[in-house]
Amino acid sequence: MEISLDGPVLALDIGGTKVAGGVVTPAGQVLCRRQVPTVGPDGEALFARVEGLARAVLAEHGEPVAACGVGCGGPARGGHRLVSPLNIGIWRDFPLRDRLCDALQLPVVVENDAKALALAEGWVGAATGVDNYLAMVVSTGVGGGIVLDGRLLDGTDGNAGHIGHVFVTEGGRADAAGAVGLLEGQASGLAIADLLNGRPPADAPPQVRRRVGTLVGRGVGSVANLLDLRLAVVGGSVALGYGDDFFGAAQAEIDRICRLDHSRGTRIVPSPLGPDGGIIGAAAAVDHGITKFVI
Amino acid sequence: MEISLDGPVLALDIGGTKVAGGVVTPAGQVLCRRQVPTVGPDGEALFARVEGLARAVLAEHGEPVAACGVGCGGPARGGHRLVSPLNIGIWRDFPLRDRLCDALQLPVVVENDAKALALAEGWVGAATGVDNYLAMVVSTGVGGGIVLDGRLLDGTDGNAGHIGHVFVTEGGRADAAGAVGLLEGQASGLAIADLLNGRPPADAPPQVRRRVGTLVGRGVGSVANLLDLRLAVVGGSVALGYGDDFFGAAQAEIDRICRLDHSRGTRIVPSPLGPDGGIIGAAAAVDHGITKFVI
Repeated sequence: MEISLDGPVLALDIGGTKVAGGVVTPAGQVLCRRQVPTVGPDGEALFARVEGLARAVLAEHGEPVAACGVGCGGPARGGHRLVSPLNIGIWRDFPLRDRLCDALQLPVVVENDAKALALAEGWVGAATGVDNYLAMVVSTGVGGGIVLDGRLLDGTDGNAGHIGHVFVTEGGRADAAGAVGLLEGQASGLAIADLLNGRPPADAPPQVRRRVGTLVGRGVGSVANLLDLRLAVVGGSVALGYGDDFFGAAQAEIDRICRLDHSRGTRIVPSPLGPDGGIIGAAAAVDHGITKFVI
Repeated sequence: MEISLDGPVLALDIGGTKVAGGVVTPAGQVLCRRQVPTVGPDGEALFARVEGLARAVLAEHGEPVAACGVGCGGPARGGHRLVSPLNIGIWRDFPLRDRLCDALQLPVVVENDAKALALAEGWVGAATGVDNYLAMVVSTGVGGGIVLDGRLLDGTDGNAGHIGHVFVTEGGRADAAGAVGLLEGQASGLAIADLLNGRPPADAPPQVRRRVGTLVGRGVGSVANLLDLRLAVVGGSVALGYGDDFFGAAQAEIDRICRLDHSRGTRIVPSPLGPDGGIIGAAAAVDHGITKFVI
């Protein structure tokens, strides 16, 4: 899909470990990159850090920007007006968009971080020129975003693409919400650490890495069959860290269940975006958000 | 979602057993309804029957119509220019749209029948006023259509919504394409008859009816979690015939796996449209198709 920006924008990628920021050009280049740890005694203190980072990036850039795009973990409500990131417990129904808008005096678009990454894959990543694809992240959690018919899917509250809660196995672990058999409960970094009795996911033996790949492939295959798409781009420390064990097993499971004319040949590929993907996606969200929401 | 027609349209619902036709008004009313069996020695003979039905409906109506909408079983290619309905073996890559266009001298839109039904549910059925929902059919096969963000999803080749190939169980029957564990291989009328050693699905005991409901609920729950939607409307002889056994078990499984803020409370309800649903959906497809495809 195409991303169209009138000029450089400020972009913020707010994760559970760090907040990264930069200015992104209409060509998808990242300038003035900075980051700070996601820490603070309370939500206000964390917001002050985010605002400080934004001001430092803008000061370094030295020229006006047209808007600010933000990628932030879900869930969210009200067109991402109120965010409650699972991995940032001190923000619950935090009015991030309005607060940033007031502080920076810029139009601000907040988007789910995995959906923002999907936009980035279509803009400068592994899905350029593709109108129908899934992008997902397998790291501490499992999330995703879907572009279909050339448009990023939103859903009722803007959380569409959440492949972590697709059914993939009878039995297995319960996820954080208590549901048994869904992808996130088996394949997230937290789930894998639990299966390894507390050891880090990087310690997993090959059979565990392949099992994670198989289950992710099962979820991807279900989505390819359901939505008539043929490309899944996967990032995140677990998927990329497990490498061929993961991607080989995932592709084999996709080949097993994608047997329709419209899904045969569905491919799963690693994200090429690297650590700037989140910032690029946050910038791309400006295009999607300004199209969809009045600011 | 809203359906907007400039005037009455001719609508044809082409199924494996019968072809039904009528004129549908901009208010969604069906006039001049007729039907013929789906039989013929070859594809040309079947097309002649369809054309004859269309001419008979138009003659009875006696006034010009603006367009013709068609619902037809999948799969299809090229924006539904070429259809290969699973249950109509004498049509393979049949150029239904162009042939009807030539024969009737009308703009013609051909749409997947399950996607057309989804449009009908949003127009005059159980999803009026809802911008995000799944509509599905559980009868001889299992199909569906998805409206998200107020738009019917198409996907690469127009087959989006095909919930019949979502993963629902480890093991189980293989479907027609040879994939094990997908919904259609367990819950379609053909699958149930096979599980019953050839007896008709209507003979199924309560535990089989509930198992079909559970697996459909599992597929629906996965879609609700994935796409941030909270309503599934289900029609088709198996689902409607199994009644409370089916819908109760499906709702229980949805409640079990839909535990996210955005999916909790997802409901599964029977389609209220009855036998005219297919014709109404075919008419609604004119609105979707004319928006999307140049004719």
